[in-house]
Amino acid sequence: MSTPVLADSVRLTDDGVEILDRRVFPEQRVWVHCGGVEDVAKAIEDMVTQSSGPYFAALWAMVLAAREAAHLEPAAARAHLDAAGERLIATRRTNNHLRKAVAAALSDVDGQAGEELVATVLAGARAGDERYRSRSAALGRHTADLLPDGATVLTHCWADLYLVELVRAAADKNVSYICTETRPYRQGARLTAETLAEMGVDTTLITDGMGAAVLAEGTVDALVTAADRVTMDGHVINKIGTLGLAVAAAAFDVPFHAMVQAPDRLAPTAADVPIEYRDGREIVDRPGIRGHYPAFDITPPRFVTTVVTDRGPFDPRRLAGYYQEVP
Amino acid sequence: MSTPVLADSVRLTDDGVEILDRRVFPEQRVWVHCGGVEDVAKAIEDMVTQSSGPYFAALWAMVLAAREAAHLEPAAARAHLDAAGERLIATRRTNNHLRKAVAAALSDVDGQAGEELVATVLAGARAGDERYRSRSAALGRHTADLLPDGATVLTHCWADLYLVELVRAAADKNVSYICTETRPYRQGARLTAETLAEMGVDTTLITDGMGAAVLAEGTVDALVTAADRVTMDGHVINKIGTLGLAVAAAAFDVPFHAMVQAPDRLAPTAADVPIEYRDGREIVDRPGIRGHYPAFDITPPRFVTTVVTDRGPFDPRRLAGYYQEVP
Repeated sequence: MSTPVLADSVRLTDDGVEILDRRVFPEQRVWVHCGGVEDVAKAIEDMVTQSSGPYFAALWAMVLAAREAAHLEPAAARAHLDAAGERLIATRRTNNHLRKAVAAALSDVDGQAGEELVATVLAGARAGDERYRSRSAALGRHTADLLPDGATVLTHCWADLYLVELVRAAADKNVSYICTETRPYRQGARLTAETLAEMGVDTTLITDGMGAAVLAEGTVDALVTAADRVTMDGHVINKIGTLGLAVAAAAFDVPFHAMVQAPDRLAPTAADVPIEYRDGREIVDRPGIRGHYPAFDITPPRFVTTVVTDRGPFDPRRLAGYYQEVP
Repeated sequence: MSTPVLADSVRLTDDGVEILDRRVFPEQRVWVHCGGVEDVAKAIEDMVTQSSGPYFAALWAMVLAAREAAHLEPAAARAHLDAAGERLIATRRTNNHLRKAVAAALSDVDGQAGEELVATVLAGARAGDERYRSRSAALGRHTADLLPDGATVLTHCWADLYLVELVRAAADKNVSYICTETRPYRQGARLTAETLAEMGVDTTLITDGMGAAVLAEGTVDALVTAADRVTMDGHVINKIGTLGLAVAAAAFDVPFHAMVQAPDRLAPTAADVPIEYRDGREIVDRPGIRGHYPAFDITPPRFVTTVVTDRGPFDPRRLAGYYQEVP
């Protein structure tokens, strides 16, 4: 099974970070060269990459910061790294991943300078990269375990590495995938469909309005999506459109498995998660017509069958168990 | 309240039929001139107009046919009209409206010729036009009666004259409308949103994936769509995407009112209605990705609150009453 380009779309090189431009993918395969931290920050702000992309971009940007600081004394080097980390975290305030990436890169740098500092930051970034990938792989395996042989899976938006790892883990199950366009950015039509096709699995694309009809046909074995966040009481926050598919899946007795590394201990319930409303002009910009654009929706636990985590599947009403199982 | 252009988008003139091109509306307002029956048939086949448009186009095309036959003896004139009718009906085999339009135009022509024939066909076409409009107006009034003052209505695709008449009938209720894009042809974004804005009512556009989130918010008072067909046991066949909205409406306790002139006596249940599958390349045309394109979906009666007809509202489980009330 070939590795899709989106599984490795942020790369550290000798002279910078190369980021695949997801805004124009797959029609164009353009890599944006970032020579320094500020270039990476701008690329994240400009949406060159999204989903898990900013996490990896921030990891490797911190290595660029260490290279920039290689000639400085320890205190000055540390100040440079901290400023770089703050700049990266500020690019997308709602994305916890960026904070984790910076912390991974800086985990062992105290008092270091020069080549030792560069090597330590590189090791921290590599460990962060490895950790994210291994948790995603665990998620993929746990989700694949829930699918019958020959399953047809309906997915929505772009589940990024979770999807890639699910496809890998289910390789011997002969799974077929149906994905939605996911208007207005078309992450499903552009990122998901292309990645599935690159991996050589059976891939079908539908419009966002077709999900219920496909679920009603009785040919779909599971609805599987990523979740941007899962609250401790089992509400799944994900890309707008997930709720409608989950409700239809429940109505036609199709299980819905939501993939997330871990439920969010800081969000006891849905009221703790503010929903982002984007500019309605991204939907329509004509006189007399208002666009309405909630970027995410909230699926209550009654429409969720399983929350799949890196520690295995959980009933959405029993997510506290995630933190009880491992100390 | 101003009359939207789509309420009168097929017009008979002294030298032909003018049809507003719905394929490019509203970005362009182009009228296609049809000098004869064959031009009208081609315009229908080429999707210049759709929904109720072909009905009106066929009515006026029959007047063109009568003009073409004005110099013929009665038998030859009738043969010319019959051929014209068959040509028009053949443009879209699944559309019953075309057959009705031809029948309306030919209802009183036996034995006629010359100017008398032209006048009779014109009178028949005008009666057909009037009948369709008065039934739509009744439908609009009965639907408006179901809405509370200040209601917010979610609609899908393009309900054509039924929607126009609903908006007119509900003019004093200060109703707001939310419509979906309706991919891939975007009838909602193009036809519905523009028509609502032209009529001066509060108009919001969302993508097809946002319907459930909007219904869950609790601000929508009713889901209202047209139906291409309603079976005698209450299944609503309509543009793909209707089912998902109906299921979500039921889940969040929002009533769904489906508008149709009459339930279909020839379709006892959903199995009697073949669903049209269109070419998947209209969804996606890239290597390794199959497009799936059911053009319609079937909403079972458990998700339908009311079937609104020109004879008033009916419980979807009691549609036989439509034919019992009036002999």
